[in-house]
This record gives sequence, C-alpha cells and structure tokens, in this order.
Amino acid sequence: MSGLVYLDYNASAPLLDEARDAMVSAMAFFGNASSVHRQGRAVRQAIEEAREEVAALVNARPQDVIFTSGGTEANNLALSPGLFAKPLQAEARLYVSAIEHPAVLNGMRFEREAITVIPVTADGVVDLDWLRAELLKDIDAEGDELKPGERAVLVSVMAANNETGIIQPIAEIAEIVHQAGGLLHSDCVQALGKMPIDMAALGVDLISLSAHKIGGPQGAGALVLRDESVVLRLPMVAGGGQELKRRGGTENLIGIVGFGAAARAARLKMDETLAHVALLRDRLEAGIKSRSPDAVIFGDGALRLPHVTCFAVPGFSAETQVIQFDLMNICLSSGSACSSGKVEQSHVLKAMGVGEDLSFAALRLSLGGQTLPEEIDAFLEAWGAIYARQKKNGQAA
Amino acid sequence: MSGLVYLDYNASAPLLDEARDAMVSAMAFFGNASSVHRQGRAVRQAIEEAREEVAALVNARPQDVIFTSGGTEANNLALSPGLFAKPLQAEARLYVSAIEHPAVLNGMRFEREAITVIPVTADGVVDLDWLRAELLKDIDAEGDELKPGERAVLVSVMAANNETGIIQPIAEIAEIVHQAGGLLHSDCVQALGKMPIDMAALGVDLISLSAHKIGGPQGAGALVLRDESVVLRLPMVAGGGQELKRRGGTENLIGIVGFGAAARAARLKMDETLAHVALLRDRLEAGIKSRSPDAVIFGDGALRLPHVTCFAVPGFSAETQVIQFDLMNICLSSGSACSSGKVEQSHVLKAMGVGEDLSFAALRLSLGGQTLPEEIDAFLEAWGAIYARQKKNGQAA
Repeated sequence: MSGLVYLDYNASAPLLDEARDAMVSAMAFFGNASSVHRQGRAVRQAIEEAREEVAALVNARPQDVIFTSGGTEANNLALSPGLFAKPLQAEARLYVSAIEHPAVLNGMRFEREAITVIPVTADGVVDLDWLRAELLKDIDAEGDELKPGERAVLVSVMAANNETGIIQPIAEIAEIVHQAGGLLHSDCVQALGKMPIDMAALGVDLISLSAHKIGGPQGAGALVLRDESVVLRLPMVAGGGQELKRRGGTENLIGIVGFGAAARAARLKMDETLAHVALLRDRLEAGIKSRSPDAVIFGDGALRLPHVTCFAVPGFSAETQVIQFDLMNICLSSGSACSSGKVEQSHVLKAMGVGEDLSFAALRLSLGGQTLPEEIDAFLEAWGAIYARQKKNGQAA
Repeated sequence: MSGLVYLDYNASAPLLDEARDAMVSAMAFFGNASSVHRQGRAVRQAIEEAREEVAALVNARPQDVIFTSGGTEANNLALSPGLFAKPLQAEARLYVSAIEHPAVLNGMRFEREAITVIPVTADGVVDLDWLRAELLKDIDAEGDELKPGERAVLVSVMAANNETGIIQPIAEIAEIVHQAGGLLHSDCVQALGKMPIDMAALGVDLISLSAHKIGGPQGAGALVLRDESVVLRLPMVAGGGQELKRRGGTENLIGIVGFGAAARAARLKMDETLAHVALLRDRLEAGIKSRSPDAVIFGDGALRLPHVTCFAVPGFSAETQVIQFDLMNICLSSGSACSSGKVEQSHVLKAMGVGEDLSFAALRLSLGGQTLPEEIDAFLEAWGAIYARQKKNGQAA
C-alpha cells in the first residue's frame, strides 16, 4: 500500500516473496501427503523439504520438527506433564517466566497449582539467582548427575520478549534446569530470524516457532525437540498418525511450504537482515530521544533483539497514539498485539516493575528486512508533531 | 498434470480456482487480525467474510463458527467433557459409531473407559435400535423433557462415511440423543459439499468441517456450534483469546480465506456438482459391474454420497492394485488415506461385518466437480485389463 508505514513486524511480518512464490507453486499440488500414489508422494516431499529448512534454521534434525498451526499451538503442545514418564506426571511442575506470551503463561495442560512464575529483574531478564535457588534447593551438589527429564520439572522461558525485545540467557538457564534434572522449553517465536537460534548450542529441550514472524504465512509453526529423548506422551491433536503420531491432521501443505521458504530466506539472509534492522533501529531510537528527551526506552541497558523498540513518555496514552498514527497510515502497536486489542496493563512491563502510568504509554515498534529508512523518518516526523502538540497543550492525550 | 486420472477426492480435492484466487489476494495483506490498526482490521475483515461463507454453507450463524487447523482438530476440540457443566464432567460418557474417523474413534479428551462404540448394521448405518435402547434405558418417557446437555452424554456420528460414502440418519439420531438429554456431534468432513448440511434442520449440536475436502486448502477447518448454548469449557489451544477465546493462536489468514471461497463455491454450485458426480459415479459403477460381475460394491443398498464408490473383488489385493494404478498415473485409494498408508483392515468394513479377505481387496474411488468422464473411462479400461489378467492367471494379485 502506497504511503504505508508498517512498524509492527512483531505482530506479523509481511509475506516474503520467497514464501509467496513457494506457496503459489504448492497450490498446484493434488493429493494428501498420507496417500501412497504419486500425487500424495509429491505433497509428502514438499513437506519434508520444508521440514529440512526449518530444522536448518535452528540447527536441529528434521525428524525432531513437528509442524503445528502456529506458535501458540506449539507452546500448548510443549507444556504438558506428558513430557515426563508416567509415574512422574502427577507431580510435574511448570515454571514460566513472568514475561511469557499468554499461550505459555496459561500453562495450559498443567493445573494452576502446579505452575510457578519466575520473576524477572528490572532489566526484564529472568532472575537467575532466584531460579537457581528454587530449582537446586533439593539437589545434592555432590550427588550423581541427573539426566534431563529425570525429575518432573519443566521450565519455559522465551528466547526474547515480544514486547521489549529483551533477550533471555537461555544457555545459562538450560544449565540450571538440567542440573536440576528438568527440561527447558523456549518460546523462540519472536527471536527466530532476529538472532541465531542454535538448539544444540543453547542446550534447550523444546522450542516453539512461528512462520509469520519471519515472513512466512500465518497459521503455520513448529515445535522442535532436542532429539528422540524428548517424548510427547500426551499429544494434543490426534487422528491419522501424522507427524510421527505427535500431531494429527492432514498437513497444512501450503502453509508449511511457505514456512520452509521463509526459514530458508531467514537463514541465508540473517546477517544482512540483522545489520539492516539494527541500523534502522538506532536511527529510530536516536530520533525518539532527540525529539522527546523524557522518553523511556524499555530494556535500554539490556541485551535486546535488534529490531524492536518499546518506549513511553509519561502521561501519554498509547491507545490514543496508536489511533492517531493509524490515521496517518502508520502501523504500530501498544503492548502485545496478540491479545485481541484489549486494553490491559502490559504484564511484561509490570513484571519489570514499570508503573501503570508508564505502561499505558508504551508503544512498540518492530522492524523487518523490508523496512525502509523512509518509514522510520515518517514515523519520527509524526511522533515529533504529536509530542510537541501534547507538550504544548500540557496535557496527556 | 497431463494424463493424470485423479479419483481420490476424499483424500484431498484439488484447490478450486476460486480458493486459489482468494488466497493469492490474501497474500498481499499485512498485519495481524488482533492489531487495531487498519492493516490488522483488513485482515480481520477478510477472516470474518470467510466465516460468513462457511456459516452459510451449513446454515449456521457466523459467531458459531470456530476456525481450526482442520477437521481433525475440530473433532478433537469437540470431543471433550468440557461440553458439560463442571459437576457433570467427571461422569461424562462419549458414544462414537464404529465407523468414525480415527480422530473421533480415539475420543481424545475422554478416558478410554468413558467411551462406548455404537454398532452399525451390515448396511453400514448406525444401529438406531441399539442407540435408542442404550440412551433411553434410564429415561422416563412420561417425565419432564430434558434439555440438550442436561445429561453428560455426548454422541458422535459422522454425516457420511469417508470410505464408503454411506449416509447416516443424523436427524433421527439427534432426536434420540436430545430425548436422552445429550449432545450430538457430527463429523461432516466428507459430507460437506456432497449433500446439503443444514445444522438447524438436522438438529445437531456441533459439526466438524474441513476445507480441503471441498476444494479449499489443507490445514483449515472449523468446528461449528448450534448456538451459544453449546459451550466449550475446556479449549484445547489457548493463547491470545482468538475465536472468542474458544481457539487461540493467530488466525491462518490465507487458509481461512481459501476455506471461505471454497465454501462459497460449494454452496453456489452444490446442485451442479452433485448432478455431475452422480452421473459419473453411475457410469463408474456400471462399468465396474460389467467388467467384473463378482465385484462387491459396499453400501450398494444404502443411501450414499453421490461421489464415492468403494468396491472389492474377492482375492484381489488392494495394495497391489493401488500401486499398479499409480504406475498408470491413476490415483485412488485403499481404505482411508488419512491413516499414513499403513496396511490394516478397514475398521469401517470390519464394523459392517465384511470379512478380512474382501476388506483387503477394497478400493475407494472418490470424484469431484472437476472429474472428467475421460478419467472414469481411463480407470475402467485399466481396471478391465487388470481384472482380466488376474482372472486369467487364476491368482490373487
């Protein structure tokens, strides 16, 4: 759309040309991947090629990739007592960080009383001291080493936060969790394509991915397992035995093929994309600071994904600004766009100790490989005008 | 593909042009349907238009349509004790007919001991006498009328069988189930577009639909509820509150738009499609009978969908024939294609009392709106040759 300024990649990225082309090609396929005839086999092959691309992006094995209908389903599928041997399931505990996506915070297949929330520091990073004390309190430091999953402890911490972009110390968390004999799941939906995700190097046991955050289609995602030692004993969607009986239902051929193409593009263009968005984000934040010196950029001092800026000016209403920007054809977000547009205080900022006033003023801008410098400048110009007008009126908008 | 004879519509129908065009258009959208800005609203609008089309195809209200990743997920979502008020959930019972798709037979969210299988007659039709006796045994005929869902009884019977096309008496079953105070779910995946499905007229409480059986894309489906009195108290995929909190996760925009377009086409072309496939199916069955007089056509005497033929000649191996046909670029199926190509006796034919020998010889041909008379003739010619050769050799293939 001409004149459109789209700074909401964390809500959804536009479809990459590579994904689009692959999907249009896949539309010509006939047949069901479970059929034995050649039309079925062609569909099967296209799906398996996509699986290899998704696996390659996160340094996993293709057979450990389970395609789902998206990141939310992957999170729901991961968080289950069924990750543990049957005798352990009743006592299984889930630890989720306070800044997780609702799909994880709910802890769906765990009873509410089996869920503990891990606090984060003011910097928005999981409190490692707290986690260590909590998980290792019953562990004998001199005792035998525990195997991952030997104790019914599941920890879920996202690789990077969707609202602030703050990166979590997954490798360190994995070490603590494994020392405690537990398993670590990481929601990598927002981090994918914005930082290297190497499952083996991170030592994480399960990760959730989503296609549409990296320029693939909405409605496709994956849960990726470390290896065959991670077993989903309680599948969620069951039926014809697809995905090695880990997720039933005829495969979303077109969506999966688009995911594969986007994963390939993300892998091949990772360095280029990161450099591109980092440059634009610096331009954006410098512009915000120069126009509104009282703006607070959340996670400024922490390690962040290079494409997200979450900021606020005390007393400004984010909801009102989102509407003002929309009238100028500038798309951005207040808080998490996944939450059906409801106006609630961001649980992420709250967990970081940010007050209500500032929380309700928080705007999130998120960039991508197709973001143009002109879009940043258009935003800054609009922001400068809004800011000056409201300061002049001496009132909160 | 030139020379391709595709007679496997029940496994998956080719994408309709209408669906393809709508999906390609949807690829140009930016944004997440949950975003409040205009890009998000455009996505939302496209999804809601598709919802209206799906609702119109089954005479339901749009707000009662819950989009899922397909028929299997819809079935899994439907079959839950969470359909009943909390105090009733522990005692909830599920009745599934013996000929259901595996996604229903599993009864996923019911404990195994809470599931009862409803027998079918030799004609492949649910045994109504059995059902009446079972469900109404504790019901006082003179007592007050029960409301649907007042007793924790869920019955699931498909509208028509995927292997044989045999149509089930859903309206009569609904009457029995409601008399017993229970709820009726019907897997309408294979019936959709092949016979009128009118939720209100059938009196069914929940139905499952799939896009790719009517020329929409794989990976999109829906669970449709009768009205707001049917409540899903235990959602399966939870997260950002999408689908009125009944199914979380960013919506599969492209898939849903394709589903909507296919639903519209199915509705507008229903009469034409039914007449087209019925004519070709008659030609097919007459040709089979004339070439192989000892062929058994399953459900010959029952009410069947007009596009499916399931037949067998004693002593012939269906698996071998599927491969032989495939070498001639003729795609068809033995039993249910959804079962990952595993060679097991069809549970559907078994439930009808068909012996193992005949079951393992069963071929399924399923037609669609794009099937050409030439495809039927090509199949018949190939079948005649295979039949004559094997009869001459006097051996089972």
